[in-house]
Amino acid sequence: MQRFLNDPDDIVDETVRGFVRAHADRVRLCDGNARVVVARDAPVSGKVGIVTGGGSGHEPAFVGYTGAGMVDATAIGELFSSPTAKSFHDAIKAADGGAGVVVLYGNYAGDNMNVKMASRMAAKDGVEVLTVVANDDVSSAPPEEREKRRGVAGEIFMWKIGGAKAAEGADAAAVRDAAQGAIDACRSVGVGLAPCTLPAVGHPNFSIEAGTMEMGIGHHGEPGTSVTKLGTADEIASEMTRIVLDDHDLPSGTEVAVLVSGLGATPRGELYVLYDRMARDIEDRGLKIHKAYVGDYFTSLEMVGATLTVMALDDERKRLLAASTDCPAFGAA
Amino acid sequence: MQRFLNDPDDIVDETVRGFVRAHADRVRLCDGNARVVVARDAPVSGKVGIVTGGGSGHEPAFVGYTGAGMVDATAIGELFSSPTAKSFHDAIKAADGGAGVVVLYGNYAGDNMNVKMASRMAAKDGVEVLTVVANDDVSSAPPEEREKRRGVAGEIFMWKIGGAKAAEGADAAAVRDAAQGAIDACRSVGVGLAPCTLPAVGHPNFSIEAGTMEMGIGHHGEPGTSVTKLGTADEIASEMTRIVLDDHDLPSGTEVAVLVSGLGATPRGELYVLYDRMARDIEDRGLKIHKAYVGDYFTSLEMVGATLTVMALDDERKRLLAASTDCPAFGAA
Repeated sequence: MQRFLNDPDDIVDETVRGFVRAHADRVRLCDGNARVVVARDAPVSGKVGIVTGGGSGHEPAFVGYTGAGMVDATAIGELFSSPTAKSFHDAIKAADGGAGVVVLYGNYAGDNMNVKMASRMAAKDGVEVLTVVANDDVSSAPPEEREKRRGVAGEIFMWKIGGAKAAEGADAAAVRDAAQGAIDACRSVGVGLAPCTLPAVGHPNFSIEAGTMEMGIGHHGEPGTSVTKLGTADEIASEMTRIVLDDHDLPSGTEVAVLVSGLGATPRGELYVLYDRMARDIEDRGLKIHKAYVGDYFTSLEMVGATLTVMALDDERKRLLAASTDCPAFGAA
Repeated sequence: MQRFLNDPDDIVDETVRGFVRAHADRVRLCDGNARVVVARDAPVSGKVGIVTGGGSGHEPAFVGYTGAGMVDATAIGELFSSPTAKSFHDAIKAADGGAGVVVLYGNYAGDNMNVKMASRMAAKDGVEVLTVVANDDVSSAPPEEREKRRGVAGEIFMWKIGGAKAAEGADAAAVRDAAQGAIDACRSVGVGLAPCTLPAVGHPNFSIEAGTMEMGIGHHGEPGTSVTKLGTADEIASEMTRIVLDDHDLPSGTEVAVLVSGLGATPRGELYVLYDRMARDIEDRGLKIHKAYVGDYFTSLEMVGATLTVMALDDERKRLLAASTDCPAFGAA
């Protein structure tokens, strides 16, 4: 493995420590839990707290979205594993400004279980906890079983919209509704061209043959919907757009936000090559792109691949998307 | 090659087109030259224009730093090749608000030649052009031949400081002096763990054997100063810090800005692992880290590796670093 590593067992601790050290102007470690990162100014008295969390290896997600106007406290798991219930609980406590806490997270078994346990613990402390579970990955289950779908890069829009709503002073139910509305308005798809390796394992945890690609792949290498010959960038971009928009079925004229994220080892220039085709295809479907984000927003170690997320906008989501944010991975809009 | 590609000959055009399409709120294509990207509000009448340019394949550099408070116009070359003199000239014209233009670029033979030709063309148009040549890469020549050194990620600090000085309304000489001071205050080093492939070539244009690393490698795979057994992350981070600070020789107590950039295929989490060790080593040398940047700021296609840049700060550079910026690759500070 040609990687920057000390002891593979230490990689998460070292990543979190380096992250907090680098961005100490915006975040800090939670007292007593080195697997929870807290926004510098959290908890804000009277503001609804925003919590998220997830496995490591997706940097800058999840930790990079901690900061003013977005997430108040983030629970951090091992590589590709859920944070513990205790970490989610500590994050809830750290985010609690007395107006309730909304936990915005992705639909994975471990996260579901641990957020549920943490919410119960918090309820005993007298903290009202509401939750929204992201399920934007269209390839992970058919439309009629949308509740089974995984959460992927659409979570970033969910955090942005929910975080901005909370920053405006909305109550917990309104924050939950805004975040739920955001993720309901999102559809995503991923494609993998080469796998990633967990350092403690030392070899790829799944395989993608050279000359092929896996459409619909998940953030941890969960199997996609098809393995086909590697297409051109235009073919891949068009197919990703088709998958997302066929599922989304938005009325012509709808304004959308578009996020194209690399999965870790994709040259940034190639993400723009994909976007160039996707944007034209999106517009050909009668949609209007209001705002685009292209970069490494939600990765999977050194996987080669990309995700496309399309979020339908209304006036409120446009306002909340443009609201100021100060977290390491998402600058002012 | 497991890459997102159409015809390799089209990759630069497609990247630029996708970039401008994605960030049309902040940039536009230059009229009549699809290899020049211009900040949305440029030229600003009475403001000194800031121009840069360089080869493609380093995204988000150079094009991502085009925007308010930073670069007014960016000339774009083929992969790893200088922009043409015509493109530099068109960028100068697009940035010219009547108060002169300062071209801030990296020390490579093609760029030197083409900026010189473009400056002569601009002088004929009556535009005053000043230049600053970045030479922050300590491994590319010994200290007594600093003028031979290449420009690498320190260029980002040069653009930020020069761009902010111009935005404050300084005259061309003062902008040039601020940018020159910034790059003189920068030292950088790179390390490579795996090479990159130019799509039109189809195989790596240099090799790094598995189990080894190349310290001092350049942004295009220029040979480094040593090829050794792959070290641990801590060993690599400490060696990079030592190389930079031994060359820099800053008085104890100096405040610095630190930038750790991945070279394209390095997991973001590992950059924080490196930073965690680098920051402690920097502080152990009696320096104070004022601000840190960790991410893919200046890449080399899908090279595995990283660069470290340390810039010494004074009160003016601290103010200019914190000034608001609105370009796709560098958010508000």
